[in-house]
Amino acid sequence: MSYFLKTKKLDIETGSGLIAILNEKEAEHLGIHPGDRVTLNYGKKKKVTVTIDTSQKLVKPGYIGLFEDVWEKRVIKEDEVAQMVVESRPLSIETLKKKMLGKPCSYDEFYALIKDISDGKFSEIETTYYAASGFVAPYTDQELYYVAKAMAETGEQFNLKQKVVDKHSVGGLAGNRSTPIIISIIASLGVTIPKTSSRAITSPAGTADAMEVLCPVSFSLPEIKKIVKKTNGCLVWGGGLRMAPADDKIIQVSRPLAVESYDKMIVSIMAKKVATGVDYLVIDIPVGESCKVPNMKHANAIEKKFIALGKKFKMKVKVIKTPAKEPIGRGIGPALEAREVLRVVQQHKFRSLDLENKACKLAGAILELKGYCKSGNGYKIAKGQVKNGEAWQKLNQIIVAQGGEDDINSEEVIKEVEKYEIHAKKSGKIHFVNNKNINEVCMNLGAPIDKNAGIHTHVRYGQKVKKGDKLYTMYTSSADRLKLGKLAAAKNIIFNIK
Amino acid sequence: MSYFLKTKKLDIETGSGLIAILNEKEAEHLGIHPGDRVTLNYGKKKKVTVTIDTSQKLVKPGYIGLFEDVWEKRVIKEDEVAQMVVESRPLSIETLKKKMLGKPCSYDEFYALIKDISDGKFSEIETTYYAASGFVAPYTDQELYYVAKAMAETGEQFNLKQKVVDKHSVGGLAGNRSTPIIISIIASLGVTIPKTSSRAITSPAGTADAMEVLCPVSFSLPEIKKIVKKTNGCLVWGGGLRMAPADDKIIQVSRPLAVESYDKMIVSIMAKKVATGVDYLVIDIPVGESCKVPNMKHANAIEKKFIALGKKFKMKVKVIKTPAKEPIGRGIGPALEAREVLRVVQQHKFRSLDLENKACKLAGAILELKGYCKSGNGYKIAKGQVKNGEAWQKLNQIIVAQGGEDDINSEEVIKEVEKYEIHAKKSGKIHFVNNKNINEVCMNLGAPIDKNAGIHTHVRYGQKVKKGDKLYTMYTSSADRLKLGKLAAAKNIIFNIK
Repeated sequence: MSYFLKTKKLDIETGSGLIAILNEKEAEHLGIHPGDRVTLNYGKKKKVTVTIDTSQKLVKPGYIGLFEDVWEKRVIKEDEVAQMVVESRPLSIETLKKKMLGKPCSYDEFYALIKDISDGKFSEIETTYYAASGFVAPYTDQELYYVAKAMAETGEQFNLKQKVVDKHSVGGLAGNRSTPIIISIIASLGVTIPKTSSRAITSPAGTADAMEVLCPVSFSLPEIKKIVKKTNGCLVWGGGLRMAPADDKIIQVSRPLAVESYDKMIVSIMAKKVATGVDYLVIDIPVGESCKVPNMKHANAIEKKFIALGKKFKMKVKVIKTPAKEPIGRGIGPALEAREVLRVVQQHKFRSLDLENKACKLAGAILELKGYCKSGNGYKIAKGQVKNGEAWQKLNQIIVAQGGEDDINSEEVIKEVEKYEIHAKKSGKIHFVNNKNINEVCMNLGAPIDKNAGIHTHVRYGQKVKKGDKLYTMYTSSADRLKLGKLAAAKNIIFNIK
Repeated sequence: MSYFLKTKKLDIETGSGLIAILNEKEAEHLGIHPGDRVTLNYGKKKKVTVTIDTSQKLVKPGYIGLFEDVWEKRVIKEDEVAQMVVESRPLSIETLKKKMLGKPCSYDEFYALIKDISDGKFSEIETTYYAASGFVAPYTDQELYYVAKAMAETGEQFNLKQKVVDKHSVGGLAGNRSTPIIISIIASLGVTIPKTSSRAITSPAGTADAMEVLCPVSFSLPEIKKIVKKTNGCLVWGGGLRMAPADDKIIQVSRPLAVESYDKMIVSIMAKKVATGVDYLVIDIPVGESCKVPNMKHANAIEKKFIALGKKFKMKVKVIKTPAKEPIGRGIGPALEAREVLRVVQQHKFRSLDLENKACKLAGAILELKGYCKSGNGYKIAKGQVKNGEAWQKLNQIIVAQGGEDDINSEEVIKEVEKYEIHAKKSGKIHFVNNKNINEVCMNLGAPIDKNAGIHTHVRYGQKVKKGDKLYTMYTSSADRLKLGKLAAAKNIIFNIK
């Protein structure tokens, strides 16, 4: 499509690139939208590519208004005739069409598409079509590899020189705050593990929320590199880093439908790991009704995909699947989870042994996968680092490197809060722990905005209790909120006794 | 999901329904978005459903701010505890998920979905998923029927008492302005034909643009009914009428991908015909390279679908497929096409006979389909109405009823314009008429914004020409624009001579 227009100089200057204005109505008829790029041919074989904006009054039909940056730098006269050539739909739109028709695409095609998403050149509508394309025909492993690679390469990357290990939990379960313990163990052994975590979106706490109770978690990439250089590890928020930024935009448009495919989840995780430069990766999949992965059949399929994709990236991947019936550890909520972590590494008498063991199991698996030790020895080595205090020394070092206080005592993490105990209404055995209700009670108490809010459990799945026994304690910063929490607790039974 | 909050009275009054405010951050964590609807349980078994808005500062976490309309009418106290129950994702989102997974849906499911789209309850993202679902698995004829029916029923409907006929062209070809002639013939015979047409989007003219040269075309539904009652017909713009409004929103999100499926096109046409209450429908499909339907195989498949869908609606449908190599009639552009129409009904010596014949053929098919006359007699009757002047009388009556001038002379439609003739550069035979280049030249001349802009052709496909013969004349309102048109004409050859 080519179109002839007369130039009109506009007395407008911006710092934001070469901009030209079309009459709004005319642009509509030409099928040109604000933000589209066109090439103007003018004078003797001169040309300039500009971004289109539209105006109802500034420019009449038949004219193209030029911002000062354009006519000054490119020496364009007033009332000159310019031929406007609309750049044909980009490669990425063609790729999008192919995927909507279920056709396979090459790396170059995916790269162009993912780059346009990450650069904000795709509208929400176009990004949604991309998200929808996974429903038309499943992507092959090769295509998932292409997409994850393109996502990593179109964002920030760590590019560390040493070998990097990492662990990732496919979440869905409250509590389960093993990450800071694992990072401390691994880093204390001289292995590099630069961990980026997320904040809670619709849950009581994410790893970044819990860590933020102990120290800042928002850093730039160069700052993170410094922390990792000093401590071998970090425990930072990954959200502000523009790592695999296309993924964030795809997640955004995936939310309304609320059906995330496993393929999409796997690509999303792998893209961030590739951007982090991970060489050895342990994936923790809690399996159970209230988890993201409801049964072993699904877990096995996911394991296969992770390993296949890892191979293509030359990343060694091990998947650990654990049946899960309740939270790991007793605290749920940012500060309560931070206290659990400190209690383990500080070997406090009230520490949660299940959390300690889970963390050592995953840390051990990482050590074995990397070849740091012989198979079968990882757990013992990890446990040793917790017992001998080196894990705590390392965590303290990371907290201080990230700007937190030195030597925080686990029992001083939670102060001046409102508390309320919930007791068993009858005797019997705990036969179900309701994860959904845990989340609801914690959020009614104010988590994750109120860092102190949440619950601490006193009983476990399968345990026998007597009428009147303490089941859990609610924590929150305000008396008002405690009242709301009580109402929520009455409605949402967490421990079913039979 | 239920959540307890304390009420806060806000001194804000609106006329736009019951609104409550949540703290922005808290709403995000609860997964609640502005516009979501929640039910508040309060007092002794009282409840109210409100629409959520969010604010950073107006309301603290743990509170819900209530607009005056809510707390006054529903008698809610300050600092009362209310239980907020988030209404589960509506049926329509479940339907959307089913369609994304390629599962069949019932009429009730489609109705809820289409109603939410038409009421603006679907975000652009959700509407895009709906548009994408057609790529996952083709809709059955039964489903296409459900969707078209739901689209019609969720918008304005004509509900005329008499039997209604209509014709529809599946476009793509420049010129081809047979509609006003057909409507005049049919209405002149006492048959009801309330025609709504579209404006050009990215072409030189739509029927509504051409008619607007002769009279106003924007009316409300009651106004249109009055015009139809008086004249048996109308020639109005359908865009402002909220007929099958969901369809317009789906078209909006379909545009970026630029692959419209035939299914979507058929549903879109049928939904508007059902809303118009059409009983007999003739569909005109020009078939050719530069048309929407490129070959007879496609045309036959489309015909089958139209007839099958028509049956379900108890609508008699006839499809007329015509190979098309060039525009019908000689004028392209709003005023030039209006002149062509008037020349035919006024039987001017320079009228385009192909346009007259095409219009009579389609009008005849409508008459036969309705049973107005015996099969084989329709064309003759239609032609008679043109020849005896009754078609012109009727068109004049419609123009006047729509607020146009009485007795407009075809030769006075175009005045005071700039013209320029393009001549053959060599002798030979016209072996290709480039439809795309016709559009480009006309739009460079200023069509459809400049109603006078466009071209009038002097030669036809297959005709022999000599070097220097007139090929076509360019029309436009301004000398400036004519210069631009000349440049475009030099670049875009319309008639290929061999």
